[in-house]
Amino acid sequence: MSDLDRVLAHIDTNRDSYVDRLCDYVRHPSISAHDIGIREVAAMLVEKLRELGMEAEAVPTAGHPMVLGRRSDVPGAPTVLLYGHYDVQPPDPLEAWISPPFEPTIRDGRLFARGAGDNKGQHFAQLLAIEAHLAVHGKLPCNVIVLLEGEEEIGSPRIAEFVRDNADRLKADLVVTADGPLHASGRPIVTFGVRGMAGFDLVVRTGRTDAHSGNHGGTMPNAIWTLVHLLSTMKAPDGRITLDGLHDPIVPPGPAERDAAAALPVDAPGYLAEMGLERLDAPADRPFHDRLMFHPTLTINGLHGGYDGPGSKTVLPCAAVAKCDIRLVPDMTPDQVLDCVRAHVARHAPEVEVIGRGGMLPSRTPIDSRFTAPIVEAIRTARGEDPYLYPSMGGSLPDYVFTKTLGLPAFVTPYANADEANHAPNENIELKLFHAGIRTGAALLDRLGAMRAGG
Amino acid sequence: MSDLDRVLAHIDTNRDSYVDRLCDYVRHPSISAHDIGIREVAAMLVEKLRELGMEAEAVPTAGHPMVLGRRSDVPGAPTVLLYGHYDVQPPDPLEAWISPPFEPTIRDGRLFARGAGDNKGQHFAQLLAIEAHLAVHGKLPCNVIVLLEGEEEIGSPRIAEFVRDNADRLKADLVVTADGPLHASGRPIVTFGVRGMAGFDLVVRTGRTDAHSGNHGGTMPNAIWTLVHLLSTMKAPDGRITLDGLHDPIVPPGPAERDAAAALPVDAPGYLAEMGLERLDAPADRPFHDRLMFHPTLTINGLHGGYDGPGSKTVLPCAAVAKCDIRLVPDMTPDQVLDCVRAHVARHAPEVEVIGRGGMLPSRTPIDSRFTAPIVEAIRTARGEDPYLYPSMGGSLPDYVFTKTLGLPAFVTPYANADEANHAPNENIELKLFHAGIRTGAALLDRLGAMRAGG
Repeated sequence: MSDLDRVLAHIDTNRDSYVDRLCDYVRHPSISAHDIGIREVAAMLVEKLRELGMEAEAVPTAGHPMVLGRRSDVPGAPTVLLYGHYDVQPPDPLEAWISPPFEPTIRDGRLFARGAGDNKGQHFAQLLAIEAHLAVHGKLPCNVIVLLEGEEEIGSPRIAEFVRDNADRLKADLVVTADGPLHASGRPIVTFGVRGMAGFDLVVRTGRTDAHSGNHGGTMPNAIWTLVHLLSTMKAPDGRITLDGLHDPIVPPGPAERDAAAALPVDAPGYLAEMGLERLDAPADRPFHDRLMFHPTLTINGLHGGYDGPGSKTVLPCAAVAKCDIRLVPDMTPDQVLDCVRAHVARHAPEVEVIGRGGMLPSRTPIDSRFTAPIVEAIRTARGEDPYLYPSMGGSLPDYVFTKTLGLPAFVTPYANADEANHAPNENIELKLFHAGIRTGAALLDRLGAMRAGG
Repeated sequence: MSDLDRVLAHIDTNRDSYVDRLCDYVRHPSISAHDIGIREVAAMLVEKLRELGMEAEAVPTAGHPMVLGRRSDVPGAPTVLLYGHYDVQPPDPLEAWISPPFEPTIRDGRLFARGAGDNKGQHFAQLLAIEAHLAVHGKLPCNVIVLLEGEEEIGSPRIAEFVRDNADRLKADLVVTADGPLHASGRPIVTFGVRGMAGFDLVVRTGRTDAHSGNHGGTMPNAIWTLVHLLSTMKAPDGRITLDGLHDPIVPPGPAERDAAAALPVDAPGYLAEMGLERLDAPADRPFHDRLMFHPTLTINGLHGGYDGPGSKTVLPCAAVAKCDIRLVPDMTPDQVLDCVRAHVARHAPEVEVIGRGGMLPSRTPIDSRFTAPIVEAIRTARGEDPYLYPSMGGSLPDYVFTKTLGLPAFVTPYANADEANHAPNENIELKLFHAGIRTGAALLDRLGAMRAGG
C-alpha cells in the first residue's frame, strides 16, 4: 500500500465525520457584503490551520482579513499555494430556501447550506486532505501555503494589493484553487486561465431636454442615434470588434491550448435549448469553446435613453447611456482597452463621454506547465477519471494576482457539482463530491511531493 | 367707412366685454381626458351657435360630441369651415398655477386660465367675429360652418370617422383653424400643412434570460447589439434614412413652397442656445426650415435593454425594445412607411418583431391656393402686418381629414402668443392678441365674401 493509498483509506474511513465537521463549519455565517460573522470565521480558520501545524494568522486589510497559513515540511519539494475564500453570498431570498441557509441539512445525498459549495465545502476539503496526510504520516509530502480570502463575494477589492504587499510570504511554485463546479456531466475539470475585463459607460447628452419629435425632428440631434451610430462603428454585424489597436496585444493560443479546446465536449444544441437561443452569436464559424477562451468580446450590458413606458410617445431624447464591458484575452490589459475605446470615441463621436469603470487583467497558465501532469494524475487517482482541460474560463477572476503579480502557474480544480446553486437559494454540495474533493486534495499533495527530484 | 371698418370699430368698442365673456367661457372646465364638463360646454356652445343664427347641434360620436353649426347667408360666396376644439388639457400640476386654472385671472395684460389659448380663446374669437358682423350688418359676408371638436387633446380619435361620415354636412370651400401660437417675434403666421406620422416598436428577444457576460459572451447573441446593428442600417450617420422605398412617394415642394420656406426668418444660433445644442442634426447642409417641412425623419423615441442601475453590471441582455416614429411628408402614408420598415427588418434582422403603432397622413395645401391672398389680406388689415407663410409645420395634426377626406384647402392662422403655455401650468392669452384675433376673424369673413364674383 503506497503512502497515498493509506491516506485515501483514512479519508474513506472518516467520510461521515468529515461531513459532520463541514456542517459545523457552514453553520457559521460569514457574509462579506453585510459584514456578518467574518471575524469569527476567520478566527476559527486560524485556529484550524494552527491545529494543522501551520504558522497562521488573520492578516488585517482595509477590508476583511486574509487568513494565511504555511507549513514547510520538505525542503526542495514544491510549495503549493491553496487559495479559497471563507466569505459567502447573502442568503436572500430566504423564503426560497427549503431548509434555512445556516442550518445545514442533508437531503438526497447533498448538504444544503450557504457556502456548502461556494466555497467553504471546497477549501475545507483541502484542509481535510492536509489533516489526513498528517494523521497518517505526521507530515506533508510537499510544502503548503493556505490563503483564504474574506471578500471574494464582493469582488476581491483588496486581493491585488494584499498579494503585491505580501509577495514574500506567498512564495510558492504553483497556485491551486478548488472553486466552481465540475463539468455538467460530472467529469472533473482543470482550468488554466480566465478572461480579463474592462468596463466603461458611453454617456451622451445632445440637448437641454427631451423635445417634441415633430417640432424638432430634423433640427435637434438625437442622443440615441448618436450612440447607435457610434456603437455600430465599434463592432460589426459579423461579430468583429472594430476598435483600432484592440487586438494588437493578443497572444494567440498555442497548439497545446488549441488542441485542449478542440478536445472539450461540445453540445451546441443543448446550449441553445438551455438558453432559449435560435443561434450562437456571430461569427457563425467560430468553434464553440474558442468563443469563450480565445477571443475578446464587446458586450453592451445596457442601453437606455428616451421613452420607456407603454404605447408610444413622440419624444426626441436628449440623453442616452450605454454600459459596456470588454472581456480580455492575454495580453490585453484594461488600460490598453480603455485607451482604444477613448481614441475611437474621440475620432467617431467626440460629443460622447467615456467613463472608465476599471477592469481586471486576463490570466493564462500554459497548458503544458510542468504541474499539469501531476495535477491530472492526482485527479485520475482520486476520482478514477481524467479531467477535461480548459485553457480558460469565459468569465473573469483575479487570477492575475497569482500569474502576473507572483509569476506563478495557477490552476483551478473544482470539487462541487454543476448544480451547486452558488449565489442562489438552496446552495448545496453532493456529499460524494465533497468526499472526492478531499481525496483529490490528498492526491495532489502526494503527486506534488513526488516531483521533489525533478523540482 | 367700409363694411369691414364698421365691424372692426364695433369689435374695438366691445373689447373689454369680449374679455369678460371669454372669462365666462374658460371658467367651465371641459377636460376630455377625464370626461369633466364636456357635455355642459358642448351644450353651451350649441346654444351660442344658435344665438348666432346657426343650425347647430352637438353631434354624438362614440366619444365626446362634435359641436357643429352652419349659417349660409350668401349663395355663391365661399363657405369657410372654422375648426377648433372645446376640450382642454388636464390642469395638473395644480400647485404650479399662480391662479387656479378654472378661475380666469387677468395679470400683466394676459388672461390666465386653462383653455385661454388652447383653444377656447381662439375659437371664441372666431365666434365673436361672426357675432360682430351680425351685430353691425345683420348677416355674414360669406357662408360659415363651425366645427368644434371635444377630443383634440386626447389625439382626435374620432375626427377621421366623423368627417368621413358627415362629409355632406361639411361641404365647404376651405378650412381655417385658429390654433397654436404666432411666431415668437409676435408676427402672425399662416401654416399650410403638417407632417404625418407613423409609429412602430422594434422588439427583440435573443434568449430566455439575461446571462453572465463572461460565461456567455461570445456564444449568446446580445439583444441590444441586434437592435444597434439593425437601426444602423435604417439611418446613416449623415442623416439619410436608408429604408428602401421610403422616399418613393415624396412629392418635392414646388417653387412657391421653396421660396416661402427660404423667406422665413432663421435664428439658428438662437435655436441652438435655447435647446442647449452644439449643432443642428445631420445633414449639416440642409436649410433650417426645410428640415422640418420637406423631409421625413426617423426618430428613436426610446431604446431600452439590459442593466439600468448605478455602476456596472456584467450582464448580457436577452431583450431590448426601440420605440420609433417617422414623420411623413406628402405623399408618404403610414401604411407605406410601415411596409418599408417591415420589409427592411425582415431582410436585415428577421428575429426582430415590428409592432405598428398607427399613424397619421401628412397634409399640405398649395401655398398658391386662391384663398392665400384673401387670408393674407385679412391678417394685414386686422393686424397691420403681413404673416409669415409656413408651407408646413414639423409636427402632426389630423389636417388630412380636411385636405384629403374632404379635399379642401386648409389653413392654420394662430391667434395666441408664443408663450401661451398650452399643455402647461399658467396657460394664458395676451388680451391684445385675443382682440386682434377677433379682428382677424372678422376681416377673414369679409375678404372671403369679396371673392364672390371670382368664386
